[in-house]
Amino acid sequence: MGKETTKTTLLEIGTRIILEKGFNHTGIQEILQTAGVPKGSFYYYFKSKEDFGLQVLENYAQAYQATLERCLEDQTLTPLSRLRRHFEESCKRFESRQCRNGCLIGNLSQELADQSEIFRSRLEEILSHWRERFAKCLYEAQEAGEIPSDLNPHDLAEFLLNSWEGAILRAKVTKTIAPLEAFIQIVFESTLKG
Amino acid sequence: MGKETTKTTLLEIGTRIILEKGFNHTGIQEILQTAGVPKGSFYYYFKSKEDFGLQVLENYAQAYQATLERCLEDQTLTPLSRLRRHFEESCKRFESRQCRNGCLIGNLSQELADQSEIFRSRLEEILSHWRERFAKCLYEAQEAGEIPSDLNPHDLAEFLLNSWEGAILRAKVTKTIAPLEAFIQIVFESTLKG
Repeated sequence: MGKETTKTTLLEIGTRIILEKGFNHTGIQEILQTAGVPKGSFYYYFKSKEDFGLQVLENYAQAYQATLERCLEDQTLTPLSRLRRHFEESCKRFESRQCRNGCLIGNLSQELADQSEIFRSRLEEILSHWRERFAKCLYEAQEAGEIPSDLNPHDLAEFLLNSWEGAILRAKVTKTIAPLEAFIQIVFESTLKG
Repeated sequence: MGKETTKTTLLEIGTRIILEKGFNHTGIQEILQTAGVPKGSFYYYFKSKEDFGLQVLENYAQAYQATLERCLEDQTLTPLSRLRRHFEESCKRFESRQCRNGCLIGNLSQELADQSEIFRSRLEEILSHWRERFAKCLYEAQEAGEIPSDLNPHDLAEFLLNSWEGAILRAKVTKTIAPLEAFIQIVFESTLKG
């Protein structure tokens, strides 16, 4: 494998293992063995395990952001329908993974927010960025008259993002999508009706 | 220290360290050293690290349940006011701990739901039990005419519990109570108004 291919492979395998086991519990040797990359070459690609974890985080955040944009930019649907479809599609993806793993950003927030200031501040930026993207869609929904004018799109976006992370967390424990379905039902039938 | 005192001390210290660092990352030696208990005596008190973790979980769940009951049984307030006060008091406790640690049940759900069936099934029971307690309060609120009759208390309880866990998770990252305040504001001003 070329240098860039090897690095990409290590990041992909690292993402899978960290999603399953968490960051602290993931061993560099396990990643190298799974990738079939010689022991000892890890530091050729990454400065440290922390550097590796931050790059895994970055890749995941970018991929999620791209998925989010694709859905929320779809001009064939109303703003509120785009938002609902985003959650419905996330729900299907979670179900297709047997309700395992959840969201890497939520998982690392839980694990590392109190342990590492560098992870905490990067997670904060990523989550704020996602919140702002939700807020933009909610502003559009408000302009289109789909949600009441007295609701605050910024606070609502905060609430929706956090509540979704909580629903994913719960669904990991129930091993069903019922918590995600309850989220979609109540958010779109009660919360966003004001 | 007597046998029971030592065991209680080990569980208390274990709870603090597991809340801070997670279960997998917590070392038995660290707990024993912090407690001033001789190395090697851990297995006198606990069958295994898993047994220890499950007892920590049990103690935490019972303490939370007692706090919840005390608040939701308070007949001097209306059902909805009791529920709101429960969240407001949880918010104050979280702030008094510098927005660290979060909820042990949420943390262990995130960390262990995919890793250990014995932890997952016990976490599922605890969370279901809490949800039923919230649902009871919401039924009472519905009977008192405080929330619309077309809302489903069981689904609402599921949503509130999960969304609260998500808000706590987010507040660990922001290191502010803003996500908890947004939760309280939106749940009581929008979601529960139907």
